[in-house]
Amino acid sequence: MLPTPKKFKVVAGGAEGRSKLTAFDNALLKAGVGNVNLLKVSSILPPSCEFDADFVLPLGALTPIAYGSIVSDVPGETIAAAVAVGVPAEETMGVIMEFSGKCTKEEAETTIRKMVEEAFEVRNLELKEIKVCAVEHKVEKIGCAFAAAPLWY
Amino acid sequence: MLPTPKKFKVVAGGAEGRSKLTAFDNALLKAGVGNVNLLKVSSILPPSCEFDADFVLPLGALTPIAYGSIVSDVPGETIAAAVAVGVPAEETMGVIMEFSGKCTKEEAETTIRKMVEEAFEVRNLELKEIKVCAVEHKVEKIGCAFAAAPLWY
Amino acid sequence: MLPTPKKFKVVAGGAEGRSKLTAFDNALLKAGVGNVNLLKVSSILPPSCEFDADFVLPLGALTPIAYGSIVSDVPGETIAAAVAVGVPAEETMGVIMEFSGKCTKEEAETTIRKMVEEAFEVRNLELKEIKVCAVEHKVEKIGCAFAAAPLWY
Repeated sequence: MLPTPKKFKVVAGGAEGRSKLTAFDNALLKAGVGNVNLLKVSSILPPSCEFDADFVLPLGALTPIAYGSIVSDVPGETIAAAVAVGVPAEETMGVIMEFSGKCTKEEAETTIRKMVEEAFEVRNLELKEIKVCAVEHKVEKIGCAFAAAPLWY
Repeated sequence: MLPTPKKFKVVAGGAEGRSKLTAFDNALLKAGVGNVNLLKVSSILPPSCEFDADFVLPLGALTPIAYGSIVSDVPGETIAAAVAVGVPAEETMGVIMEFSGKCTKEEAETTIRKMVEEAFEVRNLELKEIKVCAVEHKVEKIGCAFAAAPLWY
Repeated sequence: MLPTPKKFKVVAGGAEGRSKLTAFDNALLKAGVGNVNLLKVSSILPPSCEFDADFVLPLGALTPIAYGSIVSDVPGETIAAAVAVGVPAEETMGVIMEFSGKCTKEEAETTIRKMVEEAFEVRNLELKEIKVCAVEHKVEKIGCAFAAAPLWY
């Protein structure tokens, strides 16, 4: 089987670019994950996967990551992305939620906390804490807001 | 290289949620894949990858999976998702197809069988059988239909 | 961690199908990646990952791949997809960009070269060369244009 990740952190970034994909690329760079290969996952915190703000991803590494992102080319529009990791009180898995939309950072954070709470409720799990990271970006020409939970070893 | 999967099954689930992502999460739980990390693949059945309805996915495992899903927030709407695995008559790879749409389970099944047949025809492969799994869901507020072929080791 | 890829190539294909997903499947076959499991990545060329036009992907292998694709069911429409790998002058990572749209092959190539140049500029990296692969397809009924950089070991 593929190895199960052992560490996570939460990151976010907003940026402009000359195209939609380069705006996304620039937002990844701001979030500190611009130089690795993102492997998008839907999105569970494995048991014993611990928070670690300091791990360094090797250049080009295949990096399992849960993320939300939004790109807009409407000048003046406010866009936001958020990620939240629900850490369980007991030794089991947690849940990661991603959100993006045309809203403020605060609205994105409020929304995503509710999503994690619902996911824990449905699983009859007790929450220890929620790690949230969100960003808002006001579009100049072509902008991207990106938030993610990279998982690592 | 990454290890090639050796087993597969087919699953499906429909559910409501308070948001689109939690509806998706709840549909995954109904389908029995809600507590792992889905790694979406486009979608070949590896040679010697065998049907096994009974394997258990470890919590949080990185799980290669082919899936189709649809989310709707139109009350009363019928949505459906289907997955089909074309198993070859000879010892070679097969093909996995995913489908989702605003239709019934029967329509989804009919559509997806044709897709697998086309994929085998194009490859000059003979079909041994098609494993299909489909689900339909009538939306109350925010609903999701999800069908998948998880691949495992 | 997951193993970091060591080789890459660039491929493209355009095709018709009886459904959108089988058009995509047929375009993959034309591009030579139709019999493996595509694991989509966003999209860095790892350091020391070398161009190799000749590697053969095992049937059903989990294949990290950066790709752009577009499907259209508008008869007569011209669609195009392009991929470009920016290879750095120094020993570090490069950047892979994907593009697809309703345009010609030449337009797709021009656009994607600019995207790679922007990504290198932002990172203060010097370009050694750009490997580009693009395709255009004129839709008969349901068509797909697909371009990709598969990464391998």
